[in-house]
Amino acid sequence: MFPSHDALGEVYVAILAGGSGTRLWPLSRQARPKQFLSLVGQSSLLQQTVARITPLVPPERILVLTGPDHAPLVAAQLPELPRENILVEPSPKGTAPCLGLAALRLRARASSDQAVMLSLHADHVVTAEERLRAALRAAVFTAREGYLVTVGIVPGHPETGYGYIERGEALAEIAGQRIYHVARFTEKPPLEEAQRFVASGRYYWNTGYFAWTLGRILGEFRQWLPEVTARLEETAALLSADPNPEAPPRPWAEIQPITIDVGIMERARRIAVIPCDLGWSDVGSWAALHDLLPSDAAGNALLGDGLYVGLDTSRSLIRGQGGRLIATIGLEEMIVVDTADALLILPKSRAQDVSALVKELRRRGLGKYL
Amino acid sequence: MFPSHDALGEVYVAILAGGSGTRLWPLSRQARPKQFLSLVGQSSLLQQTVARITPLVPPERILVLTGPDHAPLVAAQLPELPRENILVEPSPKGTAPCLGLAALRLRARASSDQAVMLSLHADHVVTAEERLRAALRAAVFTAREGYLVTVGIVPGHPETGYGYIERGEALAEIAGQRIYHVARFTEKPPLEEAQRFVASGRYYWNTGYFAWTLGRILGEFRQWLPEVTARLEETAALLSADPNPEAPPRPWAEIQPITIDVGIMERARRIAVIPCDLGWSDVGSWAALHDLLPSDAAGNALLGDGLYVGLDTSRSLIRGQGGRLIATIGLEEMIVVDTADALLILPKSRAQDVSALVKELRRRGLGKYL
Repeated sequence: MFPSHDALGEVYVAILAGGSGTRLWPLSRQARPKQFLSLVGQSSLLQQTVARITPLVPPERILVLTGPDHAPLVAAQLPELPRENILVEPSPKGTAPCLGLAALRLRARASSDQAVMLSLHADHVVTAEERLRAALRAAVFTAREGYLVTVGIVPGHPETGYGYIERGEALAEIAGQRIYHVARFTEKPPLEEAQRFVASGRYYWNTGYFAWTLGRILGEFRQWLPEVTARLEETAALLSADPNPEAPPRPWAEIQPITIDVGIMERARRIAVIPCDLGWSDVGSWAALHDLLPSDAAGNALLGDGLYVGLDTSRSLIRGQGGRLIATIGLEEMIVVDTADALLILPKSRAQDVSALVKELRRRGLGKYL
Repeated sequence: MFPSHDALGEVYVAILAGGSGTRLWPLSRQARPKQFLSLVGQSSLLQQTVARITPLVPPERILVLTGPDHAPLVAAQLPELPRENILVEPSPKGTAPCLGLAALRLRARASSDQAVMLSLHADHVVTAEERLRAALRAAVFTAREGYLVTVGIVPGHPETGYGYIERGEALAEIAGQRIYHVARFTEKPPLEEAQRFVASGRYYWNTGYFAWTLGRILGEFRQWLPEVTARLEETAALLSADPNPEAPPRPWAEIQPITIDVGIMERARRIAVIPCDLGWSDVGSWAALHDLLPSDAAGNALLGDGLYVGLDTSRSLIRGQGGRLIATIGLEEMIVVDTADALLILPKSRAQDVSALVKELRRRGLGKYL
């Protein structure tokens, strides 16, 4: 049991907003990926992520990590964020270099190695926001005790697309929030294994929400990724002289992409997991988004500002735009997404194949639609 | 057997171009119905109808009958037609008043009662054009012998949506074209009756292609529809003074709508039918249009100038516009019709329900999309 705390102390948040997935095409585009879209509710997923965390941490201590193309969008969507808190990831290198760069940046600002860094993703939906804050609060206290901390999502189904965290012995309980040692990280499992994981009650989805002190995480970087760390230090120095270089700095360009899970979490010791039932979704497909949206009596969900008239249409997602009329007859479990220049139609059961379609568009030289 | 003829003599054609069906919405609109659309090939159905008949009859002798709203479209699509050959039907009254008005107009121009009037529809597809011309040639000769003549389509399937003509005794044969007395006209039959009709080999679809002398048809009008005929004569006089009145002339407005089939053909005697296998379609639905269009190896037909990319999509009709991209995954036997302001999606099997959808749009006050 850790000593109880009234205040969180010195805490920073790094929000990873660099993704550019294709599975919500044609709404999600290279120029405006998922995290910048208002998919659920009136504000974007990024804005919702920031709003979710500000009761714990003020905007001055929130960093947003994003690519050069999207930095202006971050600034436009988050006017309350100091401009220097937008940290441009010069090119995509996986989560480890990105979080390492953020840790170095924060270490230059923080008063000590004991300052805590939380890391979150900008493109997730969390409906149980108070639970997430309670979990993160516990994560901060646990991190101060020297742990690398992950938030583990209580799995709702045997998803094969996520990594899992197996819990070990109980470590502590803070304000009713149980904390466990991590026994093992597992990559995306086959279905039968995923089913066993869920049935056991001891596995959680690894969603990439972390907490650690700056001292601990930078120590891990030096231990497990010494070459990456040296290049990150050079990059940080170059970026502090020129925060928006024309091209990625040479040391950054030389880094081999690697995830924080592979680079550090699967190797390190003294890792804790805080299980949490968040009403969480990574909105990883049109089918997932449909499941998140309010539906009418026929199970249809409407998105956008199009006009919609349907006959005998049920359990479908219809996304229209700009007052254009979408009319359907006899559709069941279909996804229809209309945008200014592109229209997508597919059965909900094929939602995972949108990435393949996007590849096909690229192959045909239709990149201007991506 | 009639005497053989080298030339057709004095023949006029009346093309009915007044329809405004809803089953090809959203491509077909009130402002531009089916006959003005290029659905099959590069020119409109109206243009194709005129091109089909001009080897027999020059444009100077072709009348096009249409509503006041569409007369400018007819003029634009048929620049070779003298403007006075566009006869404005002041308001929709069914085919009998329309053809009666045309017959009166032609009688004022023709050299005698023996001049022949052919009547055709502007919104049909005919692939066997030479066969149609052969049938119409035979129809002209038969009409000069004093018959009301219909062209009967050899039925390809037991369609319940059309009227049927039962043939009686053989009447003549002209250049290999058999001509029969008509035994009976039948309204749209139930399926079992339609199946019997088709199996018998003695029934033909009644598609409203007629031939008669002006003397014969005007005589029939006076006999069976004397009140209509009196009003038509008044209307013809008023229209020859003012061809484009602001409102329908009073005598025309007083006419009760009636079809030529009910008003005359089902009552008159000495009627002949010329059976013909025309590769005919009235393009009565999106499904019918799909069946007319060339398909790729997967059975997909493309229409319009949109861009299309499909994965696992088969036996579907995709209509795009203006370079907008339509992308589909896993569609089978679907119809997708995209236009500038409205999009329609339905399974091919529901093609008959587009009319119901259009009614629903009207009920919801969305008339601007019709």
